[in-house]
Amino acid sequence: MKDVVHESFIVVKAKESGVTVTGVTRGVENRFLHTEKLESGEVWISQFTDNISAMKIRGKAEIMTSIGDLMGGE
Amino acid sequence: MKDVVHESFIVVKAKESGVTVTGVTRGVENRFLHTEKLESGEVWISQFTDNISAMKIRGKAEIMTSIGDLMGGE
Amino acid sequence: MKDVVHESFIVVKAKESGVTVTGVTRGVENRFLHTEKLESGEVWISQFTDNISAMKIRGKAEIMTSIGDLMGGE
Amino acid sequence: MKDVVHESFIVVKAKESGVTVTGVTRGVENRFLHTEKLESGEVWISQFTDNISAMKIRGKAEIMTSIGDLMGGE
Amino acid sequence: MKDVVHESFIVVKAKESGVTVTGVTRGVENRFLHTEKLESGEVWISQFTDNISAMKIRGKAEIMTSIGDLMGGE
Amino acid sequence: MKDVVHESFIVVKAKESGVTVTGVTRGVENRFLHTEKLESGEVWISQFTDNISAMKIRGKAEIMTSIGDLMGGE
Amino acid sequence: MKDVVHESFIVVKAKESGVTVTGVTRGVENRFLHTEKLESGEVWISQFTDNISAMKIRGKAEIMTSIGDLMGGE
Amino acid sequence: MKDVVHESFIVVKAKESGVTVTGVTRGVENRFLHTEKLESGEVWISQFTDNISAMKIRGKAEIMTSIGDLMGGE
Amino acid sequence: MKDVVHESFIVVKAKESGVTVTGVTRGVENRFLHTEKLESGEVWISQFTDNISAMKIRGKAEIMTSIGDLMGGE
Amino acid sequence: MKDVVHESFIVVKAKESGVTVTGVTRGVENRFLHTEKLESGEVWISQFTDNISAMKIRGKAEIMTSIGDLMGGE
Amino acid sequence: MKDVVHESFIVVKAKESGVTVTGVTRGVENRFLHTEKLESGEVWISQFTDNISAMKIRGKAEIMTSIGDLMGGE
Amino acid sequence: MKDVVHESFIVVKAKESGVTVTGVTRGVENRFLHTEKLESGEVWISQFTDNISAMKIRGKAEIMTSIGDLMGGE
Repeated sequence: MKDVVHESFIVVKAKESGVTVTGVTRGVENRFLHTEKLESGEVWISQFTDNISAMKIRGKAEIMTSIGDLMGGE
Repeated sequence: MKDVVHESFIVVKAKESGVTVTGVTRGVENRFLHTEKLESGEVWISQFTDNISAMKIRGKAEIMTSIGDLMGGE
Repeated sequence: MKDVVHESFIVVKAKESGVTVTGVTRGVENRFLHTEKLESGEVWISQFTDNISAMKIRGKAEIMTSIGDLMGGE
Repeated sequence: MKDVVHESFIVVKAKESGVTVTGVTRGVENRFLHTEKLESGEVWISQFTDNISAMKIRGKAEIMTSIGDLMGGE
Repeated sequence: MKDVVHESFIVVKAKESGVTVTGVTRGVENRFLHTEKLESGEVWISQFTDNISAMKIRGKAEIMTSIGDLMGGE
Repeated sequence: MKDVVHESFIVVKAKESGVTVTGVTRGVENRFLHTEKLESGEVWISQFTDNISAMKIRGKAEIMTSIGDLMGGE
Repeated sequence: MKDVVHESFIVVKAKESGVTVTGVTRGVENRFLHTEKLESGEVWISQFTDNISAMKIRGKAEIMTSIGDLMGGE
Repeated sequence: MKDVVHESFIVVKAKESGVTVTGVTRGVENRFLHTEKLESGEVWISQFTDNISAMKIRGKAEIMTSIGDLMGGE
Repeated sequence: MKDVVHESFIVVKAKESGVTVTGVTRGVENRFLHTEKLESGEVWISQFTDNISAMKIRGKAEIMTSIGDLMGGE
Repeated sequence: MKDVVHESFIVVKAKESGVTVTGVTRGVENRFLHTEKLESGEVWISQFTDNISAMKIRGKAEIMTSIGDLMGGE
Repeated sequence: MKDVVHESFIVVKAKESGVTVTGVTRGVENRFLHTEKLESGEVWISQFTDNISAMKIRGKAEIMTSIGDLMGGE
Repeated sequence: MKDVVHESFIVVKAKESGVTVTGVTRGVENRFLHTEKLESGEVWISQFTDNISAMKIRGKAEIMTSIGDLMGGE
């Protein structure tokens, strides 16, 4: 693979313990690749990669992206 | 595949349980590739890819894109 | 085909059931490739692709594009 | 042909039935390639392509382009 | 021909019948290639191409370009 | 010659009959290549090309360029 | 691997001793690669790299990124 | 020579007859290549080229460039 | 290595003697490469390089980066 | 030499007769290449080139550059 | 070495005699390459290069960079 | 050497006679390459080049750069 740069990243700050951020595989099969569990107050910053084209965030969390910010969870 | 980067992504936050985000295949045949079901409060962030050129969102959800934000569902 | 990225996409939110978004083929023959039928409240986000260079939207819908937004239907 | 991306598109919303959008061929011969007939309220979004370098719109219609918007027809 | 994209286009709306838009050939010989006759209210949108490097508009018309808008005709 | 795109264009609207726009050849010899005569109210839009690197406008005319607008003639 | 530049970086300032910044591996396996422990007042500035596509920050810290700033920890 | 585009141009409007615009050769020898004589009110628009890297304007004239406008002559 | 430019740099001004700026190695092993000790008032300006992808600043210092400025130390 | 475009230019308007603009050679030896003498009111516009990387202006003159304007001479 | 351009530069104006600007080598070994001593009022402008990726300024000086300005020394 | 363009330049206007602008060599050895002596009122405009990566200005002078302007000398 050449000439390819995935620069986009997101920021997730857990507002409760047990928040999860799951990377979902790029390509024809979209399965869960990696799930990171966050304690309250922990911050997770991750890029899209050659292997990850989607992410799922569960639980109460501040989420920042280049196209806007939002609160996850109720 | 070379020199190609799909960087655009969308953000979907489910406002009720059972919201679905479906990836639709790129190319001559546009069929459903992957359907992600979201619980209320879950956040889904996904890119267009070499395999997905369209997405369908069903149910009540906040949707953010680089060209504007909207509410899905009634 | 190499070095080509179609990044433009549109967003369509159906304001009534039965809204259709039809992809029209790129190239010398411009025929209907795929028609997606939307229920009221469903959101469809799709890119132009190597196979689709035009889209037709029928029915009452919010439409967002990078060059402006409009309402489809009467 | 390689390395070429036509990204410009226009948006046409018919304000009466019978509006037509005609693609005109690129190259040394500029003939009508495809004519799309729109019912009132229908929206047509199309790119310039390797095959189409001009478009003609007949009838009452809202037209949006990257260099400005206008009303077609009287 | 490779790596060349002509993206600039102009928009012409006829304000009377008989408006003409003529494409003039690129290269060492600058002759009329194609003349499009417009009825009042018709809209013509065309790009510069590998074959056309100049355009002549005759008659009363709204003209939009990326460097400014003007009225053709007296 | 490859990989070269001349995208700059100018707009000339004749404010009297007999306005001329002359293309001057690019290269070591700068001679008149093509002279277009405009009737009052006619609009001429032309690009710099591989063959034309200068233009001369004679007579009363509105002239628009990407670096500013001016009136030709007294 | 060639032609690839990861330029994005983050800034972390520890607001208490024992703050950790952990780099997580890029690729199919997302494991902890390196954990830097910061004393109160120390500043850590690091880029995403060919080897690191995610970072986890634990403890009370000021965090600056190109898409926004936030406080880690409670 | 390939891949080279000189896009910069200047605009000169003669405010008296006999204004001259002279192109000066690019390269190790900087001699006069072409001198254009302008009648009062004539407009001259020319690019820097592979052959011309300097221009000299004599006489009373409005001069427009991408880095600012000025009046030539006393 | 080709086609790669690391242009990002940071500025550190020591506000007390003994401030250190440590470069941390890029790649699979993230170890300390170089530590620069600064006297009060000295200024250090350094880029990320092919060898350094992280930096650690200890002590009271003004720190300037392209994504924001901050004070190191208590 | 290929793929190189020097687009920067400066504008000099002599405010007295005898103003000179001298091009200085690029490379290991920086000698005077060409000196242009300007009469009062004459305007000189020149680019940096493969042969010229510096310019010296003597005498009273208005000088315009892309990074600011100034008056030469006392 | 090909295709690499280091364009970033800094400006240092000595506010006392004996100010030094030291270039530090790029690469695995970060040693002092060149130290320039400045008299009061002298100005030093230097780029990062293939050989220099860091600079150290000692003494009272005005320092300008593309990411902000500061005063060196107490 | 290919594909490299140094476009940055600086402007120096001597405010007293005897101002000097010295070009310093790029590369592993940073020695004085060329010193230009300016009379009061003379203006010197020079680019960084493949041979020059630093400049030293001595004496009272107005200095303009793309990252800011300053006065040299006391």
